[in-house]
Amino acid sequence: MKSEGHLRATCFAPATLANLAVGFDFLGVAVSTFGDTVTVTRIEEPLVRFEFIEGIDSDGLPTDPLKNTASYPLIKMREVLNLKFGFSLGLKKGIPLSSGLGGSASSACAAVWAANKLLSNPLKKEDLLSFALQGEAKASGSIHADNVLPCLLGGLNLIFSLNPLSFKKLPLHKDFTFVVWHPHFRVDTFKARSILSKNILLNQHTEQSLYLSGFFLGLYENNYNLMNQSLKDVIVEPQRKKLIPHFDEIQKRAYDFGGYNLSISGAGPSLFALANGQEEAKKLKNEIDSFFKQKGEGVESFISSVNERGAHYVD
Amino acid sequence: MKSEGHLRATCFAPATLANLAVGFDFLGVAVSTFGDTVTVTRIEEPLVRFEFIEGIDSDGLPTDPLKNTASYPLIKMREVLNLKFGFSLGLKKGIPLSSGLGGSASSACAAVWAANKLLSNPLKKEDLLSFALQGEAKASGSIHADNVLPCLLGGLNLIFSLNPLSFKKLPLHKDFTFVVWHPHFRVDTFKARSILSKNILLNQHTEQSLYLSGFFLGLYENNYNLMNQSLKDVIVEPQRKKLIPHFDEIQKRAYDFGGYNLSISGAGPSLFALANGQEEAKKLKNEIDSFFKQKGEGVESFISSVNERGAHYVD
Repeated sequence: MKSEGHLRATCFAPATLANLAVGFDFLGVAVSTFGDTVTVTRIEEPLVRFEFIEGIDSDGLPTDPLKNTASYPLIKMREVLNLKFGFSLGLKKGIPLSSGLGGSASSACAAVWAANKLLSNPLKKEDLLSFALQGEAKASGSIHADNVLPCLLGGLNLIFSLNPLSFKKLPLHKDFTFVVWHPHFRVDTFKARSILSKNILLNQHTEQSLYLSGFFLGLYENNYNLMNQSLKDVIVEPQRKKLIPHFDEIQKRAYDFGGYNLSISGAGPSLFALANGQEEAKKLKNEIDSFFKQKGEGVESFISSVNERGAHYVD
Repeated sequence: MKSEGHLRATCFAPATLANLAVGFDFLGVAVSTFGDTVTVTRIEEPLVRFEFIEGIDSDGLPTDPLKNTASYPLIKMREVLNLKFGFSLGLKKGIPLSSGLGGSASSACAAVWAANKLLSNPLKKEDLLSFALQGEAKASGSIHADNVLPCLLGGLNLIFSLNPLSFKKLPLHKDFTFVVWHPHFRVDTFKARSILSKNILLNQHTEQSLYLSGFFLGLYENNYNLMNQSLKDVIVEPQRKKLIPHFDEIQKRAYDFGGYNLSISGAGPSLFALANGQEEAKKLKNEIDSFFKQKGEGVESFISSVNERGAHYVD
């Protein structure tokens, strides 16, 4: 595919839920509701610069192209592909900062997919992953693909390894609907990782393996109940929930309401649960929304099916 | 179903491979080749006694009905079901003692299924599990269903929990063929469990979770290669392999020969690998057999598809 002549492209990349309770560092899913948008313009100067950064929490982002997760991948792209021209970026944030919804992955993926359209020889999405991952690493301090991969490619993904890259797009149940809550405070991704103990008990491993098994059985046998029952995390969640006020109460409320296993999205503080279709999702959303209201805590919440496209051009 | 009038029944119950590298304490599969056979005769005396114990390694087994894994479940059965009559047992061992092939589960399952036929109101297999498990616990020192469940019910099984009992029969690929080696020495099940560290690393958990994921993806997508690649154990095997002479060399030989991931069956010392059909299984069997021969170590080996019937009457 040749696409010479493109001088400007705009790409949207969706928010993502990583870990999903049973897949710490290896499961992630793209959600359809919102994401970051990046416009990349080809410029003569051999550098990467920002035209603008705007949108949600944009004043908290670094403007130095070497430090921003949208621009850094394009600096690496220029180096590796030996590009003569440069890129000017316009970043419009749709994902709140430090929310656990894959904001840095979204910026990076939108940027590389937009920039790719300006190349004489555009690459495939899979071949752009390494660039996007380097941007993500700027924000999280470690390379994990559980946000970047679903963000770029769409769908629910399992990442076996990064080097060599090995992953699998998983099947989806048409009625699986995610409900996501974003409480109005930030959890630092570095901190959320640094508090994790390097040691766990063999018993915890076995218990968690059973939840992971149940998740896959539910997924492949199209069994919503089994999937929902299995979305439990006895390893990472008990450590990270301390960073999220009222977590135990919120989780209990979702469970008491209809047996929903609410857990943490990525490093938090966003929370998610899996509902069986839109109607159930709405009821659950309202229930947990009213809890936040009672407590006087700000929250945004949304209902989303899986985004199967991943990053895509909007202009 | 009423079956009054049966005074004698003979049941065969197959050998089983537990753990299967990725499912420590929760995965097990019944193999078709051999097993234990129990004949149970209804007697007037209100007790459980042995008529005979014979077959492989039978002189190493306790003859006290309270201590033998075949008879103990029937003692519990008499108590719980309030039976007036007793049972006389003939046990024919087909599974070597302390081989890691589920011998105690096999004796227990054959006994309960045979005895069940003599009841005025026979129970379902699922309802007999608790009796068989109590027999198994006599031998292993802890209650795990990863041998008993596939032995009684047949197939490849995942056990979610014992109390309440929750398990799932997994789908099977028609060409999945197990190759099993039984080296001529014994590993004490108590010891094999006691050497396991209670702590593991979070990294090990994540790596092992990926192998478990690959196993399920391979299983549900009918992908032999992915299943075989995923049959790796970075948690239990490194600790237990010390009890098995030449383990590393044997494992390397299988891998070098054709990429086969050989691992430990149950507590060992038996070893297994998954081949893609009979022809491959024969070649792999011969390769590893000749290693044992070179080392001057005794071994029995066999090729087996999955036994889908589990315990069944032979008379």
